[in-house]
Amino acid sequence: MESAGTRASPRARMPRIVGLAWMAITLVAGAWGYAIGGSSDGYWERRASILLEEESAMIGGDLVFEEKERLVNQMLMKAKHKEIDDAFIHKATFLPSQSFLLVSDKIRESPVFKIIEQMPKGAVLHTHDTAIGSSDYLFSNVTFRPNLYMCDLNGQLWFQFFDKPDRKDCNWQLLSELRKKDTNNLIDQRISRQLTMVTEQPEKTYPDSTIAWTKFIDIFRLITPMLTYRPVYEDYFYHGLLDLYNDNVFYIELRSTLPTLYELDGTKYGPIEVALIYKKVTERFMQDYPHFLGMKLIYAPIRSMETAQFNESLKVALELKRTMPNFFAGFDLVGFEEQGPPLINFADQIRTLDDGIFRFFHAGETDWYGTNTDENLVDALMLNTKRIGHGYAILKHPELLKYARNKKVAIEISPISNQVLVLVKDLRNHPASVLFAENYPVIISNDDPGLWGSRGLSYDFYEAFVGMMSRNADLRALKQLAMNSILYSAMSDKEKNRAMEIWKNRWDEFIEKMNDDVLCKYSRL
Amino acid sequence: MESAGTRASPRARMPRIVGLAWMAITLVAGAWGYAIGGSSDGYWERRASILLEEESAMIGGDLVFEEKERLVNQMLMKAKHKEIDDAFIHKATFLPSQSFLLVSDKIRESPVFKIIEQMPKGAVLHTHDTAIGSSDYLFSNVTFRPNLYMCDLNGQLWFQFFDKPDRKDCNWQLLSELRKKDTNNLIDQRISRQLTMVTEQPEKTYPDSTIAWTKFIDIFRLITPMLTYRPVYEDYFYHGLLDLYNDNVFYIELRSTLPTLYELDGTKYGPIEVALIYKKVTERFMQDYPHFLGMKLIYAPIRSMETAQFNESLKVALELKRTMPNFFAGFDLVGFEEQGPPLINFADQIRTLDDGIFRFFHAGETDWYGTNTDENLVDALMLNTKRIGHGYAILKHPELLKYARNKKVAIEISPISNQVLVLVKDLRNHPASVLFAENYPVIISNDDPGLWGSRGLSYDFYEAFVGMMSRNADLRALKQLAMNSILYSAMSDKEKNRAMEIWKNRWDEFIEKMNDDVLCKYSRL
Repeated sequence: MESAGTRASPRARMPRIVGLAWMAITLVAGAWGYAIGGSSDGYWERRASILLEEESAMIGGDLVFEEKERLVNQMLMKAKHKEIDDAFIHKATFLPSQSFLLVSDKIRESPVFKIIEQMPKGAVLHTHDTAIGSSDYLFSNVTFRPNLYMCDLNGQLWFQFFDKPDRKDCNWQLLSELRKKDTNNLIDQRISRQLTMVTEQPEKTYPDSTIAWTKFIDIFRLITPMLTYRPVYEDYFYHGLLDLYNDNVFYIELRSTLPTLYELDGTKYGPIEVALIYKKVTERFMQDYPHFLGMKLIYAPIRSMETAQFNESLKVALELKRTMPNFFAGFDLVGFEEQGPPLINFADQIRTLDDGIFRFFHAGETDWYGTNTDENLVDALMLNTKRIGHGYAILKHPELLKYARNKKVAIEISPISNQVLVLVKDLRNHPASVLFAENYPVIISNDDPGLWGSRGLSYDFYEAFVGMMSRNADLRALKQLAMNSILYSAMSDKEKNRAMEIWKNRWDEFIEKMNDDVLCKYSRL
Repeated sequence: MESAGTRASPRARMPRIVGLAWMAITLVAGAWGYAIGGSSDGYWERRASILLEEESAMIGGDLVFEEKERLVNQMLMKAKHKEIDDAFIHKATFLPSQSFLLVSDKIRESPVFKIIEQMPKGAVLHTHDTAIGSSDYLFSNVTFRPNLYMCDLNGQLWFQFFDKPDRKDCNWQLLSELRKKDTNNLIDQRISRQLTMVTEQPEKTYPDSTIAWTKFIDIFRLITPMLTYRPVYEDYFYHGLLDLYNDNVFYIELRSTLPTLYELDGTKYGPIEVALIYKKVTERFMQDYPHFLGMKLIYAPIRSMETAQFNESLKVALELKRTMPNFFAGFDLVGFEEQGPPLINFADQIRTLDDGIFRFFHAGETDWYGTNTDENLVDALMLNTKRIGHGYAILKHPELLKYARNKKVAIEISPISNQVLVLVKDLRNHPASVLFAENYPVIISNDDPGLWGSRGLSYDFYEAFVGMMSRNADLRALKQLAMNSILYSAMSDKEKNRAMEIWKNRWDEFIEKMNDDVLCKYSRL
């Protein structure tokens, strides 16, 4: 028996010009030693040229290696090939084909992951505010704050900060007091379990998307009243930015429903005020971490709205645009797409909206080909969406895909999210493989990392790079992903230029550092 | 909450000409009543036109409904929509997203399946001889034949027909004698279990492709010595043809390793003689069932060969071509592709082969993108394969896909096989969805139905139609699949014309009968 996965890439990922030179060499050398003396029918030359063509067409395939990138690429590809080729023999070790809920610890140990972690990955463009931070932070920080009350209503937990509970709907008790009496930590165990989708039996716990979404939505139900206490909200967001910053992400576009925030004294903050709070915290964060480039806000109310409510939300969008034109990126709708309503229901209203309000619609986050949910892709694109949230189903719509490429509408891929929410089990079957193969405009994002034990962007980059791209996709693919996150952002051209410049400096530093590490390692030998 | 899957297709699958008329109407009526009075920006018209464009591009999308097909289509689509829309709400009821090993009984009850069963489906072009019959037949017929001996070697069962066991390698005992002593039927239970991949816990039993293939290959190990007893071989094949015939399939192209057959007196039959046996049995079957159009043979030895062995097999192919040019269709290699060797190893030898020997290579039956196994697709196409066996990975190779379309190289899709052998869990993620969306040359086949409790071709048609195609794909898609099975067969043009004519007559009969059924049903009301 022969291993079919262990031969090194014949082209070692050369840029086009080197590739041509190499092809010329193979004409003499007889391609890879298989056809010594050359092949009279040009078989090996044509074969090499097909593979070269494919690799040039891939994401990152038209980038040319810069000085010192080659050594980093060698390290990276050695690690990647080892990981894939080992798994090709011992299938159970391949991480992207297993649920992230089971293998996040193992991913953290992967040498490929460790390189990705250090890499400046640019921006996160699809992430939801109340899932940006880890459940550990929620548990160990937020739930231990003073004034947090808990109640159990028909077996369902509820949290809220109060000066003194002013609602009689439930038997509110101070969590700190409850904990004192709970010598066996049963309460804490219960809370921890309810804050996360992590489970030891993902397939049994979440056999289909509806069941996964039920749990997913229930976590938001649980945490929102706790998070929307204004001081917690600010801290949670700040902490979330820090997670991203520590993962070498330097800019984000945040989707928020702009929920009503509250103070203990009863003060409430409406959507515009909440947006201003985000702006202020971002500015504070940027003062503390000057290398962070900032954020923009995508206002994304929950899609299950009536017409009147929807009109209200459009007014909010206009007001955001008017009051903070640079901070406000645009409009979206969130929620379980399969439960609707579909975009088509709002199309008439959205078409009346000022073109200056950019759209970043979720669409096609579904396996149900040919349904209304699936057709959200049509409306999203027709309604001039700037990017597509998920677009999991877009491959089944070749015309839309062409349109997306032509109009430079990027597809926001969140591999782990799609897996946890049961669109796909083995990430090698994720349709983005094809988007990578053809270098479609894509960005990789993390969606709701805090809800499934992820953090930052590196895990999703890892899944895409190891599980969804070709074994031959290399450093340039990751570099292109980072650049795409700037190119397809809502930044102005001027902001983009600055961001690209800053990112490039950081990239060069990363390459430099990795080279130093390699040299250091060898000098020790 | 709104169901997003229950709206009927706005175009009700009209042919292009009707579609245009309908579009004209929508200009007046204001598309689907959403935009009463028409939309000044043409939104609804453009939207309808995009969807119409997509549906025209789909498999079957350029067929025009013939008289009486419409009524059948209405019945079919009513059943399909009900099945999908119910499952959209109650996800656990959707059959194509569950393992076939668990749901074959439920599929049999589906009204869509029942229509597909009655439909003349044309040909099966990718099926393996020693898996064509059901395990029930093997158990209840073959294992009860006289002279069948069994032995247990280190816990592994072996079977063989003997006059008297002449091998001392194992403690051979007459199975009929063993059964007499086995009052609790333990032996029969053990045999039954070992003859099939069916299990109540597919994901636990087959966590990855290697483990699934290990069991798969072990079944062949078990049954081959029992099947290759010449009288059994003939009966098993005859019975397999009958299963297909009863499922309204009328022509097949059979892949065979042409294993050595034996008689009780020690006579052995080599590959050419085995091919002749196939020819004779086919002729007998055609006499018994004159509507059956026949078969052609694809000689497909096991890929794990050394150079010398491989050269021998090419000689066999040449001899088959010489002695039975019309019966012999061409050459292929079988076995677990991921365990290699890859096609590239044989490329030089295959290129020396007479062009008159057609190739029907298995290629890309893998999830391992960018490995040697994956690159089999390149070699298969460059070695002028007439069709691609499986081609599961071809979507990740856009250049190859283009080439396949241009050269009319059909991709042989076997949905159930791909699922059982752990390439994909939920068939909605099967890449053929995209091939259907763009009307690539594809055929649907059954691969090894007997090994996983399938029978005939209808189950695979069902999975493709309900699970992999759009909710809107209709009767014309199934019709196109049937026509493709003739168009992309190895038949001569003359044979194809005759086959198409015969199939068309049967199709018209089917349509006629279905219309009668409907009328009958209504006349009873």
